[in-house]
Order: sequence, then structure tokens, then C-alpha cells
Amino acid sequence: MSAARPDGRATGQLRAVRFEPGFIGHAEGSVLVAFGRTRVVCTASVEDRVPPHRKGSGGGWVTAEYGMLPRATSTRNERAGVRGRPQDGRAVEIQRLVGRALRAGVDLGALGERQVTIDCDVLEADGGTRTAAVTGGYVALALALRAVGAAAALRRAVAAVSVGLVDGEARLDLCYEEDAHAAVDLNVVGTDAGELVEVQGTAEGQPFRSVGGLDRMVALALEGVAQLCTLQRAVLG
Amino acid sequence: MSAARPDGRATGQLRAVRFEPGFIGHAEGSVLVAFGRTRVVCTASVEDRVPPHRKGSGGGWVTAEYGMLPRATSTRNERAGVRGRPQDGRAVEIQRLVGRALRAGVDLGALGERQVTIDCDVLEADGGTRTAAVTGGYVALALALRAVGAAAALRRAVAAVSVGLVDGEARLDLCYEEDAHAAVDLNVVGTDAGELVEVQGTAEGQPFRSVGGLDRMVALALEGVAQLCTLQRAVLG
Amino acid sequence: MSAARPDGRATGQLRAVRFEPGFIGHAEGSVLVAFGRTRVVCTASVEDRVPPHRKGSGGGWVTAEYGMLPRATSTRNERAGVRGRPQDGRAVEIQRLVGRALRAGVDLGALGERQVTIDCDVLEADGGTRTAAVTGGYVALALALRAVGAAAALRRAVAAVSVGLVDGEARLDLCYEEDAHAAVDLNVVGTDAGELVEVQGTAEGQPFRSVGGLDRMVALALEGVAQLCTLQRAVLG
Amino acid sequence: MSAARPDGRATGQLRAVRFEPGFIGHAEGSVLVAFGRTRVVCTASVEDRVPPHRKGSGGGWVTAEYGMLPRATSTRNERAGVRGRPQDGRAVEIQRLVGRALRAGVDLGALGERQVTIDCDVLEADGGTRTAAVTGGYVALALALRAVGAAAALRRAVAAVSVGLVDGEARLDLCYEEDAHAAVDLNVVGTDAGELVEVQGTAEGQPFRSVGGLDRMVALALEGVAQLCTLQRAVLG
Amino acid sequence: MSAARPDGRATGQLRAVRFEPGFIGHAEGSVLVAFGRTRVVCTASVEDRVPPHRKGSGGGWVTAEYGMLPRATSTRNERAGVRGRPQDGRAVEIQRLVGRALRAGVDLGALGERQVTIDCDVLEADGGTRTAAVTGGYVALALALRAVGAAAALRRAVAAVSVGLVDGEARLDLCYEEDAHAAVDLNVVGTDAGELVEVQGTAEGQPFRSVGGLDRMVALALEGVAQLCTLQRAVLG
Amino acid sequence: MSAARPDGRATGQLRAVRFEPGFIGHAEGSVLVAFGRTRVVCTASVEDRVPPHRKGSGGGWVTAEYGMLPRATSTRNERAGVRGRPQDGRAVEIQRLVGRALRAGVDLGALGERQVTIDCDVLEADGGTRTAAVTGGYVALALALRAVGAAAALRRAVAAVSVGLVDGEARLDLCYEEDAHAAVDLNVVGTDAGELVEVQGTAEGQPFRSVGGLDRMVALALEGVAQLCTLQRAVLG
Repeated sequence: MSAARPDGRATGQLRAVRFEPGFIGHAEGSVLVAFGRTRVVCTASVEDRVPPHRKGSGGGWVTAEYGMLPRATSTRNERAGVRGRPQDGRAVEIQRLVGRALRAGVDLGALGERQVTIDCDVLEADGGTRTAAVTGGYVALALALRAVGAAAALRRAVAAVSVGLVDGEARLDLCYEEDAHAAVDLNVVGTDAGELVEVQGTAEGQPFRSVGGLDRMVALALEGVAQLCTLQRAVLG
Repeated sequence: MSAARPDGRATGQLRAVRFEPGFIGHAEGSVLVAFGRTRVVCTASVEDRVPPHRKGSGGGWVTAEYGMLPRATSTRNERAGVRGRPQDGRAVEIQRLVGRALRAGVDLGALGERQVTIDCDVLEADGGTRTAAVTGGYVALALALRAVGAAAALRRAVAAVSVGLVDGEARLDLCYEEDAHAAVDLNVVGTDAGELVEVQGTAEGQPFRSVGGLDRMVALALEGVAQLCTLQRAVLG
Repeated sequence: MSAARPDGRATGQLRAVRFEPGFIGHAEGSVLVAFGRTRVVCTASVEDRVPPHRKGSGGGWVTAEYGMLPRATSTRNERAGVRGRPQDGRAVEIQRLVGRALRAGVDLGALGERQVTIDCDVLEADGGTRTAAVTGGYVALALALRAVGAAAALRRAVAAVSVGLVDGEARLDLCYEEDAHAAVDLNVVGTDAGELVEVQGTAEGQPFRSVGGLDRMVALALEGVAQLCTLQRAVLG
Repeated sequence: MSAARPDGRATGQLRAVRFEPGFIGHAEGSVLVAFGRTRVVCTASVEDRVPPHRKGSGGGWVTAEYGMLPRATSTRNERAGVRGRPQDGRAVEIQRLVGRALRAGVDLGALGERQVTIDCDVLEADGGTRTAAVTGGYVALALALRAVGAAAALRRAVAAVSVGLVDGEARLDLCYEEDAHAAVDLNVVGTDAGELVEVQGTAEGQPFRSVGGLDRMVALALEGVAQLCTLQRAVLG
Repeated sequence: MSAARPDGRATGQLRAVRFEPGFIGHAEGSVLVAFGRTRVVCTASVEDRVPPHRKGSGGGWVTAEYGMLPRATSTRNERAGVRGRPQDGRAVEIQRLVGRALRAGVDLGALGERQVTIDCDVLEADGGTRTAAVTGGYVALALALRAVGAAAALRRAVAAVSVGLVDGEARLDLCYEEDAHAAVDLNVVGTDAGELVEVQGTAEGQPFRSVGGLDRMVALALEGVAQLCTLQRAVLG
Repeated sequence: MSAARPDGRATGQLRAVRFEPGFIGHAEGSVLVAFGRTRVVCTASVEDRVPPHRKGSGGGWVTAEYGMLPRATSTRNERAGVRGRPQDGRAVEIQRLVGRALRAGVDLGALGERQVTIDCDVLEADGGTRTAAVTGGYVALALALRAVGAAAALRRAVAAVSVGLVDGEARLDLCYEEDAHAAVDLNVVGTDAGELVEVQGTAEGQPFRSVGGLDRMVALALEGVAQLCTLQRAVLG
């Protein structure tokens, strides 16, 4: 029998998830999303231009950028851009994931020649910043497309959650303390129809045998995604 | 007779100022400060190291960095660090001002060989981000020094506010709409003893005659600083 | 019934895989690895230093960097470093994957205070450059650890391969043409003991239903990994 | 009673100010300006283009850049641009001040769709490089506008000087040795009509009480500005 | 009498020179060139655009970029572009030489509004990487111009070789070991008509007296260039 | 018969060469050097540290950096370091040449563990900036070594000059107008003993036949170098 979770949750229970829509008044769409202590500001900015590789296609583009405030973590991280410092590799990796995830939610052709940039800025990190960024990013995206009269370009809701194998037990939505002790850390991006957009599973420390294990972990994640999509719908009205 | 202020304030009245201390759990000191719709996250990070020019001095250092979330403004700004992009010049100018202002609040010798970095990140901008950053930055700094047992290094409270000449009338704490129409924009950093740390006044459009005008504007600003210091004390307990 | 593969392979068949060990005489370990037309130069460089986060741990570190020659692809890519241009995001994402994969093959404690840097430079790209980089990177790593008398720090062989869902059919080791038409693209890093190190699956275009599908795709990938590990052993003698 | 100034000047006396117009033959306008030992090369370059934010306005733009030769100071500073090093923050702060100051001298609408870039490069620094840059920058600007037949866009002469509080005494145009001991350092940009463009006052070490003091310091500065404008007129003929 | 060369060559003998044309399938022109153990991948990429300074000229442009794989040398070099690192100065110096050399081989007017970029990437370095890059670069260029139907823009073949003064003796095509002991190192770019394009001679350690010596060294180099041009012709058919 | 030179000089005649030693008071050694209208500020800075590759050698290092003021040329060049812009390639190429040239003048072992950095900043360019930089750089270097009591580390004087083939005639010390029409441009670094340090000759437009021509051009250059060394001696007293 495995030990209790640090915050007393059941294995398949999400942390308290909160959305504060309209968090940034200037943006076409915005939300502050919290997965427990993890808090991410997501804004969606709509511009009447497309990147070079989409020029002349008639369709649009959705992209994401990710950053953390320097003190989102227990020790201070250097600020990108200061004295020429580029984004760190982890931020680059995450923003590419968020961008792929959110493009799956949109009909780029129906978007018209517009670019939507989803900015995800982590105020405080306690595990799961990338899944919170995807989940909140979708809310900001949906609000922005409505605001500019392009809601028809939304194809499906997209949300993300982690599942970890801790002490042999699959747990939903790891906080940092659990993440640090997980044998396997799986991040799943799914849709409100129970489909998958992206799955990233990483062995921490020791490689793992899957033998049917991945599908079970993914199924648990998709239950979490379904709950997140219900919460997204409640916010989006 | 001049027109009413856009938000109905009296000429010498601050916007609604709010402090949310402890806004970022990981930081030694933190606060969310709001001057009306302008909101800035301030964190203070204490590290047991000093920059090269302070090595061997026995004393410490206080420095500041400033950034804006890409969508803090009405149109999106490019994110620093992405594809090698450096901080923009305005951010550099402001963070230097904030650093000078906050060093005036601290006895660097009594600080010991420690560096405190004040990060000021603007969530939303509606004029006065630099004055909010100084005012909130001091709160974060004071909280952090207490947290590490170095409160004795605090010498005096520091706060900042703007005064603008709009339609010939000196107004305290301009919002963006007023700032855009001001003939003169003055930013004043002062102390809880009514002293000045820094004064920056800029003519917008037309040069101005001072003839005793500067001292009057500064006096109005110092009244605002006094009120801000009272609010800081309430937060710091 | 699905169409034949462009190069006539069976669905579970790897491309022709070739290793040319000792490809770069100066490196402690090196190999040119080819997965069909995809060719990657992998070198392992051993240095008697560790990164800051490993200082004083007694153990070592393994890291990876990834690049493509400007003309590894059908149109020319800009060269990193020229006129200050940083690495592109895709390279950053891949080199982080390669580093995590290869660290799983090594006992960092047994390595001692040494850093091994695996450089993966793509001469020509035809799909699967990241899986070739992991697979060849392990060969370079193993050769280098032998060369410096640290073969005891090798814990297990690591290799990687892709599986794609094309026309509803799971296919092993996609070339670029298949990759461009795959509904799902799964990259799997595994060990010679049939365990998993990392799994990354991405829907291309449409989200997908998994219902047990992931585990089957992973199983096919692990068969490919087993074959690659056999080929690695043959090269390593 | 305060001590004599290091170079024996009266409190309200400028250093020897010299202008060498036409110092750089290639530029539309240029001058070498010296405030005592501080020497700055100022050039004005006129180009038939405007920055993006002025496109289609029909008007032009004036901007400034500031740099110091690596050995303008007593110890060598690193050269910007070498090995990707960005401009240092002090240079950024100063060039923004110079740009604002010189735009006050020009009718941007009358300039037409032209950009004038004022480059200020410090050969040797002995305090007051920013005030020398503004003062010399105006001369270069005026020469350049004449050279391209746009003298009508000049609205007013602009010059700058510092005033410092040293041993309780207001002194005009501080050299480095005085600057290092001043209690307050005030930089004033003014016009030939005795108006103010920008005022920046900073407490060095201890905050200061103003009580009418700022206006007196500004008045002293404006006397210096008036003398500088007389010297500018003599040079501009 | 001087000692034998480390690899037993006669003083006027080239190392084994090999060309592997078509080394990179994606490029319009490519070759792997080896001068002994020095191996360089050269690709030529043709694009229908020209740099700003050639816009509207009707003619084209040829440029070169040079890089080394991190482990091309006996110790690992940092990779350009990683964490914002720019190209090192040596690479910049060499790519400018290669670009000048290859432009001498082409009638830029006859090229039309096209840019050819020659990428020279050193797999392994054993002296003479810049001369190998020029010599292989010409082969890649010629293959590319043929491939796009622009062979008529080729004016003359260009090749390069080094001559060194070792123990008072002029030796052709130095390897690294000889280069490190040479008193003078001369790099000569010449044409198949025995003409010179560029000559760079550097004293290593001690300055040298020329007294007719340069012309003799150049003559030896031109013999090497002639042999290289014969080999180029054989490859180009 | 060839046309007269634009400034009426004889073919073997230098432009008016002037040295203004002590041009920058802060530097250990400095000079303003003019070759006609080409003017370069050279400073030598001595620091008690050596670069990593010289650590523990007991000896020192001499290095050079080169820059041009933005308006040193007929059209404005972008300033290095602004918005992350790196040095341009031409500056990198030249500063490497200057560094090699000046190291030939010094006994690095006798220098002790010191680094001398020669900064060469071009105020105005009219051809020959690199040769003026070498020639003036030596003067700055010699003055600095005397100033720190290390004159014994000077081994020989070093100077540089160009020779060009214009209308079939070898001309010494080309100005920009001649340089633009030269068939061959040769830059020669030599010593006061008539020895060579570096020779760089480039065909402009058409390749050239040397047949003894290089040695004659070098001989003419060495006559110029001898004159320059005489002038250096006069300045150095």
C-alpha cells in the first residue's frame, strides 16, 4: 500500500483548479489559471498578420510563448533578455508543446489571415506548469476568438494534465513534491471528446516496463482532461 | 477651469492603491501592488553573494530588474529573450531607476555580503508602472530583509509617485490617459521623512517654464509619497 | 488495406541502419549513424569538469547538443551563431530529449567528476534525426567511456525509434515522406532490456483515440529498439 | 564655508567648453564637443526613412545612440558587440535621454519623412558626458538639417548641464571628482528661451530635503544652459 | 638538410586529396573534400533572392559560411548559437576569405538575381581547413550552377593551398603538425589559369625576411593549385 | 602612362602621417594616428590578468579590438551592441590581424602575467584603417609598456601599409578612392628591421598574375614601413 499524497488527495483527484477569466484587461482573451499553488497567466493576442510560412495560405496561425517570473521557483532564475541572455531550453521545449497543443483546437483555415499568440507566464510553480499553461491557454484562446468574432474557428477544447507513477501507483496531476519522487512522469494533452493530442512520458531515474501500463496511465489522464474540459466550459459559459 | 479627471479623482488624490503581500510564496519577500489598473508583481530574492564591484567590501548590494508581460499593454510587445531579443531600452531605464531608489532605503554595510534582487513584473499597465514598482519593491524588500533576519539594514521607507501638468493643473498619480495628455510628467521618489531620492521631470511636446513650478509639483508628489508610506506601514505591520 | 511503404519495407521493418565507428578521429568516441538517408555524426567528448549543479556531488554529468548542417534539409536553414542568431527551438527541444535519454544509460555516480558531451550533427535529414541521434549517441558514449577507462559507468544500452500511424497502420521508423502523412508520430526511447526511457506521441492534424493503441505502438517500437541494440552490440564488439 | 573647486572655478562657472564643428567629414553634421576634459564626438546622420511607428505620418524622427570608447574611463570597459555583448544599461539610459532632449528641438512634422540619428561617442570621460552629448548633439543636428536644406524644422536650441550640491553649495557643471562627492546630482536639459525639457535629480548616498532647493538649482542650471546656447550660436554662425 | 615530413611527402607534394561529390543529397551542389585527414562538407544552396546591397543590380551574389563540428579538433569547441554564443572570430575570418575566393570564380552579372551560399562545415581538422573549404567550395558551386542551368556564370576554377616555411624549407599543403612548427604560413587562392586571387602570409613567432622568397613560395603554391584544379576537373567531368 | 594620384602624391609616397600621443588621458598608452583623412584612436590598456589559454604560463598576452564610429564612413553603419547586434565580420577580421601584428612586437614571456588590450576606434575612414590601426597600435603599446615599467618586453617596432596596383602601377598607401579602383590590394605588416610579419593580397575584380610582382610590391611596402617606423621613433622619443 502506498503512502498518502502530500495534500491528501485521492490518486485520481485533480488539485483545486481555478480560472480567473479577464485577468488582463488589455488582451483579447486572458485567464489566470491555478492548479493548486501553480499559477499561470495566459493571454491570447490576435494580430492581422501571419508568419512567413503561412503567407498567402489564406489561413492563420496559433503559436505560444512561455516564461516564468524569475522568482516563480524556490531559488531565483535569471531573467531572459538581460545582458543578452536567451530563453532557457526548458522554456523553449514547453512553449513548443503548448503551441502544438493549441493548434489542435483550432481550424487554421477558418481563422483567416490572423495570428493568435498565447503567452503563458508562470507566477508561481509547484509542478504542472506546462499542463496548466495548455489548459489555461485554451481558455484564453477561446475568449479571444469570441472577442474578435472568430469563434467559428474553434474546433474542440484542449486541456492537459500529468500522471505520475509514485511508489508504483498512478497519480493524477502531480505537485512538485510528488513529481520529484515519481518513477514515471507522463504529460497528456487531450480533447473534450476524449482524444489524444500529445503524450510525453519520461522515466525519472530508472527506465520502466510498460506492459499495458501506458494505456492505463493515459486513461487516468483522460479522465482528468475530461474534468478540466468541464471546468473550461463552465468558465466559457 | 480645467476638466474633471477621467476617473473623477481630486487633483491631489492617489488612485486606489492596494498591496497583496506574500503574493509569490517562494520569494523571501513579495507583493502584488496595484495603482488603479496598473498591477505589478514585486519579489525580493536574497542570495549569499555580491557582484564583483562589492567583493571584499563586507557590505551587500540591492539591484532591480523590470519587465512587462507581453500583453500588459494594449498591443502585444515582443518577449525579451526570444530568438535572442534583448530587453528593450525602456525596461533598462526603469530598472536602473528602481535599483537606485531602493538602495536609498538600505544600509548596504549592515546588509552583510548579501545581494537582494527586486524583480518587478508588470501584469497590466495603465500609467505609473515605474512608481508602482518602486513603491511595491520597497514592500517586497522590507519583507525579505525581515524574513532573513536583516531588518536592521532597513534605513527608511521609499515610495514613488508621478505628478503631471494637465491643462495647466498639477495632478497626482496620472493614469495612462492623463499621462498621454500631460504637458509635464514628473516622477518623484521620496522617503517617509519627506526627503527626495530622485526626481525626473520631462516635458511632453513643449518645453515648460518652471519659475517655482518644480518645487510645487515636488511638494504635491511628496504628499502622495507620504500617503504611500502610510499604506506601506499598514501592510508591513 | 493500406498502401505499400514508399521504400517497400514491411510495417515492422527498420530502414537500413549503418554505424561507422571512429568517424571523427579526435573524439574520445564517435560514430556516423545512418537510418536510411538520415545521417548523423555523433561524438562524445569527455572533460574533467562538471556543471555547477553537480559540483561537489562526486558524480558526473552527461549532456547533449544537436545541430543540423544548414543544408541537411531540402531548403537551406540559417546557421546558428551567425549575426547572433541563437539555436532554433526545434534543436533545443531535441537536444534536451537526447540528453535525458543518454543519462538513462549511465551511472552518473560511477562516472566520477567528469562531463560527457554528446554532439549530434545531422549531415542529411530524411525523418528520424532525433531517434538516430539517440541511437548513435549511445554508441559514441560507450566508445568514449571505454577509451577513458570508465566503461563500468555504463548501465544499459539505449536506442530510439519512431512508430507512426499511417493510413491506420502502425509503421516502424518513418522516413520523411511517411512522417509528413502520419496521423500519429510516436518517438520511443528504450533500453536493451525492453524498458522505456521516454515516449513522445503527437497527433498530426487530427487528435486520435488511443484505446489500447499506445501500448501496441510502443510494443512495436520496442521491437525496433531491440534490433537497434543488437546492431549497437555488434558495433561495440 | 565650502572648499574651493578642484579646478578653481566659481560655483556658477562652466568648464572650458569647446566645439570643433565638422570634426567628421562624412557626416551631414558633426562636432567634437569638450566640457573640460570630457570630450564627445557627435554626428548627425540623415536618412530618407522613418521607424515603423512613424510610417505614414508624413513626419520624421530624431533618435540618439550613445557609446564610450573602451578606454574613455580610468579602467577599461568591455566593448559592446564583442562576443555578443549588448550595450550596457547606463548607455541605454543616456541615449534615451539624449533622444528625448533633441526631439524637443525639432518640429518633426516639418522634418518630412526623414530620420536623423545623433551618435554620441565619448572619447574621454571626466563627468558630464550626457550633458555634453545633448549640447553637442544639438550642434550636429542643426548643422545636418542645414546641410540637407531642412533648417526650417529647427524649433529651438537645446543644451544641458549638471548642477551638484557639494558641501551644501550648488555648483555648476561638475567634473568627475566633484560628481563623486556631490550630495545631489541634477542634470537639466533646457532651451535657449530658458524653458525646461528634462530635469533629473538624484540623491547620492543620502536623500535630500528640497524646500525650494530644486527650483534654485534649476535656475542655476538654466544660467548655464543660456551660456551654452550662446556658445552654440557662435559655432552655428 | 631538413628533416623528412611527418607523413613522408616530398616538399612539393599535396596530401591525398579526395572529393566525394553529391555527399548531401538535398543540396543543389555538394562535395565532401579531404586534404589528408582534414575533411570538409561543402554545399552550395541557390536561392532566388539577393542581399540588400545587390537589389536592383540585375546580378547575383555568392557568399560563404564556415563552421566546425564541436569535436573537429583535439579538444571540444563550444557550439555557436548555444545560449546565445556567436560564431568565433576565426570562423568569421575564414568565411570571409572563402566568400571572396569563390566570387572570383563567378560572373555575378550572368548569375542573375540569385544568391549562392556555400556552407563549409569541417568534420575533422588537421591543418588547411580554409584551403580545403575554398577548393571543395568551388566544386559544390560548380555542381550547383550546373544543376540550376547557370553553368554559363562560371568564369574560372578556383582552388587554394598552403605553403609553409619549415626548417627553412618551403613545403606544400601543411598538416597540423607542420603548421604548428612553420616559421611562415602562406595561404594562396589561385585559378586554373595560374593567376592569384588572394595571398595571406603570416609569420609564426618570428618575422621573416622575404627577399624574393614570397614569389617563390607563391610559385610553389600555384603548382599545388594547378594540381587541385586538375582534380576538380576530373570530379566535375 | 598612368594617371596622377587623386591627391597628387608620387607612387611611393605615403599620405601625411600624423601621431598625437597621449590623446586619451586615462589610458596607459594612447595615440591618435592619421593617414591622410583616415583617423584612428588607439589606446593600450594594461591589466594584471591573462586569458585562460595563458594561465600559468608565466607570460602575458596582447590582443586587439577594432571598431568604427557609426559615421566613420559615407553612410551610417549600425552600432554594434545595440539591440543585440554583434560586431560585423569585417571588424572581426581586422582586429584579428591587428592582434597578430602587435604580438610580433612583444616578448610575451618578458611581459609577465599581464594582458595588453589595444583598442582601435576609427573616427573617420578614407582607406587604410587597418594599416593605420597597426601602426598607431604599436605606438600606444610602446607608450603603455613604458608607463608600467615593462619597456623591456618590446622586441621590435611594427607598422603596416597598403600597396595597390592601380592602372598597372604599384602605389603606396591607397586612399579610399584609389582602393576602389585597384586591381590588387596588398596590406603588409613589417618591422623596423625590414622583416615581414603578415602579408595579405587580394585581387579586386580580376585575378592577377604575379610573376615576381608580389615581391616588388612587398619591397615598396617595406619602404613605407621603414618610413612609418622612423615616424614612430620620432614620436616615442
